[in-house]
Amino acid sequence: MLSSALAYALAHRTAHLDALRDWLRIPSVSTLPEHAADVRRAGQWAVDRLHAMGMPRAEMVDTAGHPVVYAEWLGAPAPTLLIYGHFDVQPVDPIDEWARPPFEPRLEGESLFGRGASDDKGQAFAVLAALESFLKSSGRLPVNIKVLLEGEEEITSPHLAPYLRDHIAQLRADAILIADQDMIDPQHPVVMYGVRGNVYVEIEVRGPASDLHSGTYGGAVDNPLNVLVRLLAGLQDGATRRVLIPGFYDAVQPLSAEEKDLLAQAPITEEVGLFLTGAPTLGGEEGYSLVERISVRPTLEVHGIAGGFTGAGSKTVIPSNAVAKVSMRLVPDQEPAEIARLLDAHLQRVAPPTVRWELRVIGMARPAQTDPRAPAVQAAALAYERGFGHPPVYLRGGGSLPIVRDMIDSLSPPGGAIPVVMIGFGLPDDHTHAPNEKLHLPNFYQGIETVIHYLDILASQA
Amino acid sequence: MLSSALAYALAHRTAHLDALRDWLRIPSVSTLPEHAADVRRAGQWAVDRLHAMGMPRAEMVDTAGHPVVYAEWLGAPAPTLLIYGHFDVQPVDPIDEWARPPFEPRLEGESLFGRGASDDKGQAFAVLAALESFLKSSGRLPVNIKVLLEGEEEITSPHLAPYLRDHIAQLRADAILIADQDMIDPQHPVVMYGVRGNVYVEIEVRGPASDLHSGTYGGAVDNPLNVLVRLLAGLQDGATRRVLIPGFYDAVQPLSAEEKDLLAQAPITEEVGLFLTGAPTLGGEEGYSLVERISVRPTLEVHGIAGGFTGAGSKTVIPSNAVAKVSMRLVPDQEPAEIARLLDAHLQRVAPPTVRWELRVIGMARPAQTDPRAPAVQAAALAYERGFGHPPVYLRGGGSLPIVRDMIDSLSPPGGAIPVVMIGFGLPDDHTHAPNEKLHLPNFYQGIETVIHYLDILASQA
Repeated sequence: MLSSALAYALAHRTAHLDALRDWLRIPSVSTLPEHAADVRRAGQWAVDRLHAMGMPRAEMVDTAGHPVVYAEWLGAPAPTLLIYGHFDVQPVDPIDEWARPPFEPRLEGESLFGRGASDDKGQAFAVLAALESFLKSSGRLPVNIKVLLEGEEEITSPHLAPYLRDHIAQLRADAILIADQDMIDPQHPVVMYGVRGNVYVEIEVRGPASDLHSGTYGGAVDNPLNVLVRLLAGLQDGATRRVLIPGFYDAVQPLSAEEKDLLAQAPITEEVGLFLTGAPTLGGEEGYSLVERISVRPTLEVHGIAGGFTGAGSKTVIPSNAVAKVSMRLVPDQEPAEIARLLDAHLQRVAPPTVRWELRVIGMARPAQTDPRAPAVQAAALAYERGFGHPPVYLRGGGSLPIVRDMIDSLSPPGGAIPVVMIGFGLPDDHTHAPNEKLHLPNFYQGIETVIHYLDILASQA
Repeated sequence: MLSSALAYALAHRTAHLDALRDWLRIPSVSTLPEHAADVRRAGQWAVDRLHAMGMPRAEMVDTAGHPVVYAEWLGAPAPTLLIYGHFDVQPVDPIDEWARPPFEPRLEGESLFGRGASDDKGQAFAVLAALESFLKSSGRLPVNIKVLLEGEEEITSPHLAPYLRDHIAQLRADAILIADQDMIDPQHPVVMYGVRGNVYVEIEVRGPASDLHSGTYGGAVDNPLNVLVRLLAGLQDGATRRVLIPGFYDAVQPLSAEEKDLLAQAPITEEVGLFLTGAPTLGGEEGYSLVERISVRPTLEVHGIAGGFTGAGSKTVIPSNAVAKVSMRLVPDQEPAEIARLLDAHLQRVAPPTVRWELRVIGMARPAQTDPRAPAVQAAALAYERGFGHPPVYLRGGGSLPIVRDMIDSLSPPGGAIPVVMIGFGLPDDHTHAPNEKLHLPNFYQGIETVIHYLDILASQA
């Protein structure tokens, strides 16, 4: 069954590539209302494809937003794998920077260019192609499969958590597979066993009723910008880069010696960090390695400060108000709502009476992690070795993917935690979310083979 | 001589008002190249007026920028008074907010509306009308008079300091009179015996080579905005509001008990400060009164911070660079160039090696003061009492007027300091530099009388 699936995949590389190109032609930009019909079309395309490959059930399900696609094949005794992916894509601006139209996918050397080529249609299609390879060559799959594809990932999945809560029985599984991430390079695939959370806030400081001239009034009133930079600077220690909000670290799980060793194996060196960022030197929290700083440690970043005058030349204005955008990446078990509460309590203690201030939470995502020793995760490591010829690097992701925690919360068995297996076939230079997005074709084909191996290994564990 | 001059001024109120309206019709906006000919016309108008009133010498002198007007009458044995004013005006935008066209002056109740009505054509004309009142009624002036009017005050007088240096003998005088400021209200005229200086800088912090995603890289590099707010917060003590740049206060003259008493008489209360600013509470440097904070103490203000993202919603960007605009108001004997040097030395000590940074000085003005006990200043106090019926408040101005220090430096006698007598007939609600600028006509007429008294008192001191 394995060998015939692999043979099918090899024989159908061109057919799979052509099918992916069809999918990429649909401009399923979820954030733009004028593309809502295209998002639906991209979902219907997936439903048709799932039917055609022999999935007995495949359907589009409406939500309050864009639809989701659900499909299943339940002909095996055990286990059951839930596959997640998304068929919506990022907008294409700045359109002028694309060498070719973003929805006219084209081949160039070993790359397929087009919006969604890597994120996530190309990777989701690789998983579908693996299913097809089994179904078309053997008429069955090695394990039970449930497929859940959504059309709102690029707009933070507002309707996925409700869908999960409403379809717990339908979606129940032994593990979840997500293929929507990058490798370090083609020799270093990545098993991601966690994601950071995030809480994004605005801190507004208001002082005088209107802008004042710093000659006439300078010294008489507290300048909201002066107060704001003081409040912001007070959030983080200048020497250790530790966050100074009381209670901020209370829920952070200590890093075990075992995980420390695991992370130390990732080939993410200072040299790599300097090369990738172009920073004069790297910087970060005292007492932690580079890879720990970007994966298992929380951070605090100021993203922008509005208020006053930033044009050319000089204007001696004391602004009546100033607003900072700040986010904190969170790690298990920090809860964004609790961190926002701690920040509010801190500001209440330290903000001076010379100003009024307001804290606004404008985005939250909870952190999540899975046990890298879980058999379903170890199966992915072995599958990478067989598909790419290289064992993977284990990492917790620095970014935020709130659906991971939503799926764990909704679909874990009583007293346990469903493993979430995060793999991917993208590369750091795929330009996802940017002009000239591409997919590295060798990764596409080896990705299909990796998923074929994965399903085979998963069946052998049962 | 005094009484005939006062009688002339009273008899010619309408004629003086009409003449001022003529001057105001000339749109002498110095910052706009298309109005260069208008600035020259406004200067020529003054030359013609000075000739017509009987000044034996009155001429326009070209500079590398807009011209200056010089006039003199030297028929008295002593003393000699140099009168300074300016005939250029601020731009008129936002033009839509003017109730009537800004260069079609109109009377409404006790107000004359039009650009320049208060700043400074109206006030400069009051001084010229006082000279005319003596010359036309008695054929002479009580003291020697030199008149220097410039056309670049609203663009920081770039060519006045060179003119002063090149015409020291021509401009030599015993005192300088400037009428270009506000009273607190019609019952509280102001003798201003100093101005603060200013040094306006940009502090730029550069980190990664391009903007980075805070998920992928958050924790690995020092965020330039995080570093910048830390550097800015480190410039000022959060409790005392003292500036923390080492050496910043070294050159600040201590406040004498005598001056402290003088300033304490100014009717500038917390209530007034709260009413004028609308701030929740006032704030400022520990250990100093409100009036001291806005006049004799230096300050540090953040005016704006650029870099990163300040639009609606959230963007998790680590900006590659961030720039703050900061100014410090300075008091005698702080030198702006020295303060910039101290700031640079401070930043060299405290800036972390994780970023590159640059300090750019984009504006400097030196502080200045004059002795409020000088007879020429005391004469102004007495003149106010006679012209307005109220003794003046003594204040050092919080804003910056670099020509004051330039004139003191160029025109003071060896070992001494030429008194600079700063008076004015504007009101805080005159909307100078704003739409619907106006002049309070009672102040205009009493201003003319005050200057008539001033010249008379000055002569009696000789």
